[in-house]
Amino acid sequence: MNVKKLILRIAVPIGVFAMMGIFASPAEAKGLEQETVFSAVDTVWVLIAAFLVFFMQCGFGFLEAGFVRSKNVVNIMAENIMDTTATTVGFIIAGFGLMFGSGNAFFGTEWFFLQGMPDVYPGLTIPILAFFFFQFAFSAAASTIASGLMAERTDFRADLIYSFFTGLLIYPIFGHWVWGGGWLAELGFTDFAGSSVVHLVGALIGLAGTIVLGKRKDKEFGGETIRGHNMPLAALGTFILWLGWFGFNPGSQLAADPEAIALITVTTDFAATTGAIVAMLLSFAHTKKWDPGMAMNGCLGGLVAITAPCAFVTPMAALVIGIIAGAIVYYGTALMEIVRIDDPVGAFPVHGLNGIFGILAVGIWGTDGLGLLHGGGFTQLGIQALGILACIAFVFPTAYVLFQVIKRTVGLRVTPEVETTGIDLVYHGIGSYPEFVE
Amino acid sequence: MNVKKLILRIAVPIGVFAMMGIFASPAEAKGLEQETVFSAVDTVWVLIAAFLVFFMQCGFGFLEAGFVRSKNVVNIMAENIMDTTATTVGFIIAGFGLMFGSGNAFFGTEWFFLQGMPDVYPGLTIPILAFFFFQFAFSAAASTIASGLMAERTDFRADLIYSFFTGLLIYPIFGHWVWGGGWLAELGFTDFAGSSVVHLVGALIGLAGTIVLGKRKDKEFGGETIRGHNMPLAALGTFILWLGWFGFNPGSQLAADPEAIALITVTTDFAATTGAIVAMLLSFAHTKKWDPGMAMNGCLGGLVAITAPCAFVTPMAALVIGIIAGAIVYYGTALMEIVRIDDPVGAFPVHGLNGIFGILAVGIWGTDGLGLLHGGGFTQLGIQALGILACIAFVFPTAYVLFQVIKRTVGLRVTPEVETTGIDLVYHGIGSYPEFVE
Amino acid sequence: MNVKKLILRIAVPIGVFAMMGIFASPAEAKGLEQETVFSAVDTVWVLIAAFLVFFMQCGFGFLEAGFVRSKNVVNIMAENIMDTTATTVGFIIAGFGLMFGSGNAFFGTEWFFLQGMPDVYPGLTIPILAFFFFQFAFSAAASTIASGLMAERTDFRADLIYSFFTGLLIYPIFGHWVWGGGWLAELGFTDFAGSSVVHLVGALIGLAGTIVLGKRKDKEFGGETIRGHNMPLAALGTFILWLGWFGFNPGSQLAADPEAIALITVTTDFAATTGAIVAMLLSFAHTKKWDPGMAMNGCLGGLVAITAPCAFVTPMAALVIGIIAGAIVYYGTALMEIVRIDDPVGAFPVHGLNGIFGILAVGIWGTDGLGLLHGGGFTQLGIQALGILACIAFVFPTAYVLFQVIKRTVGLRVTPEVETTGIDLVYHGIGSYPEFVE
Repeated sequence: MNVKKLILRIAVPIGVFAMMGIFASPAEAKGLEQETVFSAVDTVWVLIAAFLVFFMQCGFGFLEAGFVRSKNVVNIMAENIMDTTATTVGFIIAGFGLMFGSGNAFFGTEWFFLQGMPDVYPGLTIPILAFFFFQFAFSAAASTIASGLMAERTDFRADLIYSFFTGLLIYPIFGHWVWGGGWLAELGFTDFAGSSVVHLVGALIGLAGTIVLGKRKDKEFGGETIRGHNMPLAALGTFILWLGWFGFNPGSQLAADPEAIALITVTTDFAATTGAIVAMLLSFAHTKKWDPGMAMNGCLGGLVAITAPCAFVTPMAALVIGIIAGAIVYYGTALMEIVRIDDPVGAFPVHGLNGIFGILAVGIWGTDGLGLLHGGGFTQLGIQALGILACIAFVFPTAYVLFQVIKRTVGLRVTPEVETTGIDLVYHGIGSYPEFVE
Repeated sequence: MNVKKLILRIAVPIGVFAMMGIFASPAEAKGLEQETVFSAVDTVWVLIAAFLVFFMQCGFGFLEAGFVRSKNVVNIMAENIMDTTATTVGFIIAGFGLMFGSGNAFFGTEWFFLQGMPDVYPGLTIPILAFFFFQFAFSAAASTIASGLMAERTDFRADLIYSFFTGLLIYPIFGHWVWGGGWLAELGFTDFAGSSVVHLVGALIGLAGTIVLGKRKDKEFGGETIRGHNMPLAALGTFILWLGWFGFNPGSQLAADPEAIALITVTTDFAATTGAIVAMLLSFAHTKKWDPGMAMNGCLGGLVAITAPCAFVTPMAALVIGIIAGAIVYYGTALMEIVRIDDPVGAFPVHGLNGIFGILAVGIWGTDGLGLLHGGGFTQLGIQALGILACIAFVFPTAYVLFQVIKRTVGLRVTPEVETTGIDLVYHGIGSYPEFVE
Repeated sequence: MNVKKLILRIAVPIGVFAMMGIFASPAEAKGLEQETVFSAVDTVWVLIAAFLVFFMQCGFGFLEAGFVRSKNVVNIMAENIMDTTATTVGFIIAGFGLMFGSGNAFFGTEWFFLQGMPDVYPGLTIPILAFFFFQFAFSAAASTIASGLMAERTDFRADLIYSFFTGLLIYPIFGHWVWGGGWLAELGFTDFAGSSVVHLVGALIGLAGTIVLGKRKDKEFGGETIRGHNMPLAALGTFILWLGWFGFNPGSQLAADPEAIALITVTTDFAATTGAIVAMLLSFAHTKKWDPGMAMNGCLGGLVAITAPCAFVTPMAALVIGIIAGAIVYYGTALMEIVRIDDPVGAFPVHGLNGIFGILAVGIWGTDGLGLLHGGGFTQLGIQALGILACIAFVFPTAYVLFQVIKRTVGLRVTPEVETTGIDLVYHGIGSYPEFVE
């Protein structure tokens, strides 16, 4: 019975612009005259970077799959494939236009259904479709990050719906403020590759989600951890994400500027390095165990923290940022237990707390007068802090309302029986390892 | 006893051109004078695209491995590694020459053993070895697609032999007709990146194979499905294939033309998106389960369908093509049960039926006067249909005869006992998870 | 209690240059003026190649994980993540400077802590940070190769320590001799992409390690093999490594020279192809089983052997080199049993013996007067042999002493009880598959 509603909600929009697409081709074709403005090497760089960012969907999927129990793994996999598609649809319909179209300080008002776009985004040397694809891959990351906090108990239809709205509305509106010429950009708020736009947004959506959902039935705060079922899969996810970040950060230069992309590659890698080392050492210092999950999340925390400042800091500062990021992951994970928020894969310390830290790091270590330590004074740091507050003030309540609406209509959480049995068999009709677990 | 024959068949040709190679270096060296014709950025683009296409061997391997039972997984893995090598050898000996060398309307007659090649393929700006490597990766995909239809019961030596002949003969000859200046190319048949040349050819070889083999012992048509053993592995394969397609399609431009490669990237992704959505929604509408296999195969079906028209359609048309492709995967999978053909991984609906649909899609949605909806009339559509018939008429009987010959000599199918025990232990001497399954 | 020592040893150096980093930014910033010397396409090529080489850490991790028992898999994963970071730290502190800084015939004496570097490495067209990142990825590969020989019994802290010293000292010093303008380079020793610098060095460190460690308790030479626990993971590792090699070898051109990178791509792939075929055929000829491990290691052996000569040989010669490399892997694996050295993943035949063979192959098949078969005479071959001896004479004793020092201080080997239980639970506090194995 819910099928019809779902089809109406998701398939009809697709149908609408499918129809439009058949007749709308002139909009795309007209651009082919101005070819001289494009740089082949810039386009190659941005597209390959976008492919790496796209592949982070796989990385997130495996990180999450490794950290959950085997009875919910098919669900994680299906969700990581399908939220890519749901975000795409949302980003096509309105997300890209709201984020990057001209408009006002709060949202863009053109390019819906990709209609009326110019050949090139102002200031760039790549086709606008290359820019679109790179940005779509970012939006998909935001909704996938949220899914980590909501793992093991969210209804699959709810997954699809919030992913769609993430790509359609939440991600693009905050994105417009920062990257689309909106009010935060006007103020000078600086987030090079998305510590706030992607990671903090995703983490706040997920935080709202996990709060509305409540904890997993079996979760005991401060007690025995619910163990992930497959550490090699989690490690695979980590390596793929680390690789993908070399698209995420250096690709955000949006041009193959040699010195910039080389510097960003190195700062990105350095923060991952010290993030992993520090989280690992702290886990050993406290528990006498070398916790592999801490190596992985410490690495990812370093990557999130360096995402905003990667283009504006020295390699040495990147090492410092990673060190702090690793400590944030370790103590942040403990904090989640204390505040009793169930975060099955540790996504909030990684993407939320380090998203915040990354934004602040611009105001501390940013060179060329951006940061406190390089003559920037407290102004930039204040603007960065304001941006964080704006992000929280917009994203968290919006997502909270969205989840409440989903809860009262389609339903947000699976039944207790399904949670016990596992989402895989009930919702997807197949277990993750049918010969080994039933 | 068969070792000797096999060594004679496979090792001797290698030995022959090994000997030739030692003395043949002048052929390669002479080209170094004309360096000015080459474009560095085009070469970088095509090589990286080729690496992504090459990595699709891994993607196909894991998709198949996930969809079969654990007792045959080592076999799948060994096969995906070794058919890459067998196809390479075939493509070196004669495949590349038959496909791209000058000759007649039906096959090329030069460049065997890579001898006598010019530095650059006519009309391109990349070294011919870069072009060779890109095309070799395509040929490997064709033979790997076939292996999906033949999984869980094919003799390993037979696998090597048909892969060799796929790279040596079947793939290159049809390829010459379309991409090597052959008779279909002359007629105006249009297949941008290989919906027919790679996917339909691979699927038809596999179809002949599964028909000659017969169904798996345990397969009951219309009854309970034989479940794949590992959904995460299948999802990994899907993500790697999706990534690889960003090499497959945009790389087929064979130059870093900014507008073309950006458009192709977007059309490729859009068809995957709606393909996954529609196949998933149909599975839910019919079974109330969100079948992960349908998300995966729907996505891949969209990718196959967009492969031929990706450079000639608008992004919106790509969404429509994906929608239809997703439906073809869903209903095509049901059709295979009705016609009682055993296709363990669902390869025929994905690569065969959507290969056909992709070719027709050029004649429907192709812009610039190619397609029905853009003023192209029925001529192009007719030529596209003719190409499909030519593909079927050449590939299926040729492959059928090849499999019959293999069946009567080396043997095509494992014994019923081996099929029960699993190919892994008997042929490869090790199980996929020795500690967990024996 | 060892925590403190460890923190002192690892964290303090990090802290030191962290402090330095905060104040040292001018060193990086000053370079931004000379932008004209850089080539965007060369930088894009080298960075993407470096990303692929970086991803080989994941490939090595999964190859090793698949070949060991499930009780030690978390350890392998943690080690592959953490040795990347430990090598990075060593390479930053002194490795890069010792290897590439100006100095004397034996080591460089500048650029420690990345201070005082010019914008561009002499002779190149890419930013020095891009060059640094590419080279760091190589150093990480060397220490990871060593870990394969030492799997399933090495203390985790020892892993971190020797990885650190590999990146700090051992790898860079031999590297300086060959690639940093040292005495072997002066003599004309030729190793294009690192058959000796990376592979033989890594294998010799691992050989010293396994000799100091002694065999695994359960290992019986010439008897039943200890089986790897997960063949799909090993196959995944192989495919990722094969992919990564397309960064490793063609990237070592350090510029997007079309003819060179196309040739290197093809020679690299061809050697992998025949390496896999020959090792597989030999395993079948001797055991009547198609051993998947031989397909994988044969492929990798071919890749190692072609690494030194990849830019200097014809594609046909690459096929011959792969054939011999495959045989070296097969018989070398048998040899390890005879000489009673425990090499859990077969790393020494792959990286050590084929590293040696690859260096010699330059002197045999090298075109343009390098090799015996192309008019080179015995001089080059003699220099190549001398380089091998120098590598062995420096690396093996140095590593041996390092492992003896570790053994007498921190401890090199886990206790017999830990070895029986598995390193995962005792050292890392979690098993690889907590629901399936405890």
